[in-house]
Amino acid sequence: MQPQCDLRGLWLLLLSLFLLLFEEARAGRPLVSCPAACLCASNILSCSKQQLPNVPHSLPSYTALLDLSHNNLSRLRAEWTPTRLTHLHSLLLSHNQLNFISSEAFSPVPNLRYLDLSSNQLRTLDEFLFSELQALEVLLLYNNHIMAVDRCAFDDVVQLQKLYLSQNQISRFPLELVKEGAKLPKLTLLDLSSNKLKNLPLPDLQKLPAWIKNGLYLHNNPLHCDCELYQLFSHWQYRQLSSVMDFQEDLYCMSSKKLHNVFSLSFLNCSEYKERAWEAHLGDTLTIKCDTKQQGMTKVWVTPSNERVLDEVANSTVTVSKDGSLHFRRVQVEDGGVYTCYAVGEAFNETLSVELKVYNFTLHGHHDTLNTAYTTLVGCILSVVLVLIYLYLTPCRCWCRGVEKPSSHQGDSLSSSMLSTTPNHDPMAGGDKDDGFDQRVAFLEPAGTGQGQNGKLKPGNTLPVPEATGKGQRRMSDPESVSSVFSDTPIVV
Amino acid sequence: MQPQCDLRGLWLLLLSLFLLLFEEARAGRPLVSCPAACLCASNILSCSKQQLPNVPHSLPSYTALLDLSHNNLSRLRAEWTPTRLTHLHSLLLSHNQLNFISSEAFSPVPNLRYLDLSSNQLRTLDEFLFSELQALEVLLLYNNHIMAVDRCAFDDVVQLQKLYLSQNQISRFPLELVKEGAKLPKLTLLDLSSNKLKNLPLPDLQKLPAWIKNGLYLHNNPLHCDCELYQLFSHWQYRQLSSVMDFQEDLYCMSSKKLHNVFSLSFLNCSEYKERAWEAHLGDTLTIKCDTKQQGMTKVWVTPSNERVLDEVANSTVTVSKDGSLHFRRVQVEDGGVYTCYAVGEAFNETLSVELKVYNFTLHGHHDTLNTAYTTLVGCILSVVLVLIYLYLTPCRCWCRGVEKPSSHQGDSLSSSMLSTTPNHDPMAGGDKDDGFDQRVAFLEPAGTGQGQNGKLKPGNTLPVPEATGKGQRRMSDPESVSSVFSDTPIVV
Repeated sequence: MQPQCDLRGLWLLLLSLFLLLFEEARAGRPLVSCPAACLCASNILSCSKQQLPNVPHSLPSYTALLDLSHNNLSRLRAEWTPTRLTHLHSLLLSHNQLNFISSEAFSPVPNLRYLDLSSNQLRTLDEFLFSELQALEVLLLYNNHIMAVDRCAFDDVVQLQKLYLSQNQISRFPLELVKEGAKLPKLTLLDLSSNKLKNLPLPDLQKLPAWIKNGLYLHNNPLHCDCELYQLFSHWQYRQLSSVMDFQEDLYCMSSKKLHNVFSLSFLNCSEYKERAWEAHLGDTLTIKCDTKQQGMTKVWVTPSNERVLDEVANSTVTVSKDGSLHFRRVQVEDGGVYTCYAVGEAFNETLSVELKVYNFTLHGHHDTLNTAYTTLVGCILSVVLVLIYLYLTPCRCWCRGVEKPSSHQGDSLSSSMLSTTPNHDPMAGGDKDDGFDQRVAFLEPAGTGQGQNGKLKPGNTLPVPEATGKGQRRMSDPESVSSVFSDTPIVV
Repeated sequence: MQPQCDLRGLWLLLLSLFLLLFEEARAGRPLVSCPAACLCASNILSCSKQQLPNVPHSLPSYTALLDLSHNNLSRLRAEWTPTRLTHLHSLLLSHNQLNFISSEAFSPVPNLRYLDLSSNQLRTLDEFLFSELQALEVLLLYNNHIMAVDRCAFDDVVQLQKLYLSQNQISRFPLELVKEGAKLPKLTLLDLSSNKLKNLPLPDLQKLPAWIKNGLYLHNNPLHCDCELYQLFSHWQYRQLSSVMDFQEDLYCMSSKKLHNVFSLSFLNCSEYKERAWEAHLGDTLTIKCDTKQQGMTKVWVTPSNERVLDEVANSTVTVSKDGSLHFRRVQVEDGGVYTCYAVGEAFNETLSVELKVYNFTLHGHHDTLNTAYTTLVGCILSVVLVLIYLYLTPCRCWCRGVEKPSSHQGDSLSSSMLSTTPNHDPMAGGDKDDGFDQRVAFLEPAGTGQGQNGKLKPGNTLPVPEATGKGQRRMSDPESVSSVFSDTPIVV
């Protein structure tokens, strides 16, 4: 009978277990409760400083904040939580020994907004490591051993606002994270202080809007000293950006293996930073941004004559566009002066002044003037060269003896003759002469109307010449005389 | 010369100190930098687990997050930070020995949004303790020894959304924190689990909107067992509120010094919870709230015939008001049925069904019916009393002998006579009699058209009476006969 009793006991045990499970399922309650190592306050699980080598196995699905800081975790595998924690918004893993995070580790926590991985042993940030965290707003990675940030590590983390990468070994500036239209459109704070950055993409950084530069911390890096770096940070200092103002003494650069403060680069003889005015020419279209230190501020522009610029006025040349920029349709000289942008934000207000200089000529006309001057100059030089050629390089006069001269006034023919150069490879050039190194070309003025002309007859130049005014003819100037010098079809004299 | 040298040295020292201070001030940089015990990442100061007996003295003014958890702090005095930390938004003081917090301790941190005071030794929350924290959103006070929450402790903390008071010794439910129009209008989570609550203000709790009840954690308290408690939590269970669904097994109550699960109160014979329908009467004005588990959801109502209820329609009796409530102007019987509210929120969507029963009579008409019945009853009783008076209490007939009777048919006059009561103080009543205790009044039917009538002549009742139909006249009924009984102007026979 003993085996039968055992079997019955086993059945009863199984049945009671089944009933217990059924009861739990019926009640709709999660099967897991507060883990032994943790302190539970409704949806908060505090399991810090418990010397845990692993994440507690069963975590309640309703957990919103999980504190695992100050433990001995070394690896965060994909299966660290068997249940999806869709309510989890804060995960604290700082002060552990984490040296490996699986690329699927964050799949069970898609709604995470705050992730603290600071003070661990991480060395790399692999591609797509955080891609599952599409709601992440704050990521703390300071005080690790990160040497390389993969260009795709933060792909799809579109809500990220604050990224702390301080106190690592990073030597490449991750420009892809901040530049306009970049991977992290909402990023307002990027802490790269106390790393190994030597070179910065200075022109790209200067182009960034002030609200990004305001939170771009670059102090305590062995940056390469040069005047461009000084100019960059001087501008940031002028704009009172937090990233520079709070850490002025810690903004170093290296020159000749020595550390220098960026703002004391006297040995480099850098010119002092001066805020430049905006320049425009008459009739230009111009947009001046109100480059505030914070996003989403309400902006009001005031003209040099203390009048408020209105948003949309049909006939006004100055308007404020939807993004708060000042827009000039056709700049006039009287538009010049100092414009002021008053920006009102949630945390603070800001006042920005911008000077506009308007030049009293159009940029289009200016270019025309330059072009005309250039062509006139080239024409003059060419004329001089040709005159010199005519004077000194003409072949001996005996060559011309065989050519029958048309009956004309000697003085007139000389005064009206002009020189032309003809490339010697032109087979059509010349009538009975084809060996000319430099051919002498003469335009002979007609003796009378209908008289044969040894040259190209211009249709627009057939002025009737009065017989009695032979003297006046000589003084008539041809408006296209310069261009006719370079005529494609030379006339061989 | 020695004293002079000393003086000169002192002057030099002072001068250099002054220059140093001037230099620092000129540069606009805070005089303090990262404290020795802390790890600084731009605006984050992490000073946790450093066995600090006090807060580090000089903290940078730009600090945004200060982590002082896992230290040995025991008192937080007013002067814990000499500089105002206006940028500080998160202050972590958990896992210390804090047993005293000055009422002015939070003056230097007016923009704090997150305050963690969990796992300390706090015993009381004094009045106005947190009043300076007008931006505070989350306050963690779990795992302390708090016995009493002063009614004014959270005055002015108007932005507070989450308050964790779990694992303390609280015995009074702080109703002032949650009830409508209360001190904390934005509170969505109040964790009072694992305390010493015995009694709850059940009717007040039942009235709270679902978005408060959803985050009102009351498990692990020695609540007093009764059916009202069971009904309350059964309703919360029916509504699938997180505060009950996540902790069903931990919702206890005490009866006869034994702990029972709230949902197994079979020994109390509580009636099972059943969701009640809304009841209305014809023509009633009614507003049904879409009582969602989350605030600020977009709400759409659908009628029993699956038609969407529109926001504002001029002639419609059913509309949706601005706060998403269903509003009936004049309820009709055909308005009855099950209405469904579809609520769309950021985190989740919700569907709520509400049944409306409309009774087929007006509540106003019902009152009318009662009034009519009452007056009819009173009239009948009075009539009976008067008949009895007429029959038994009339004075002897000899009094009437002196009155001349008009010539009329005896039978007709008797059949048409009706009784009327006349107040004895009426001086106009009667012709030659003025001593009548109870006067006998008779309406005499006219003998023919144009005949003199001894009484009030009703304009609407002047039907032509044919001479040959004297019998038919008697059967004619006066529609206002009942009211005529109580006629103000009695006709004295």
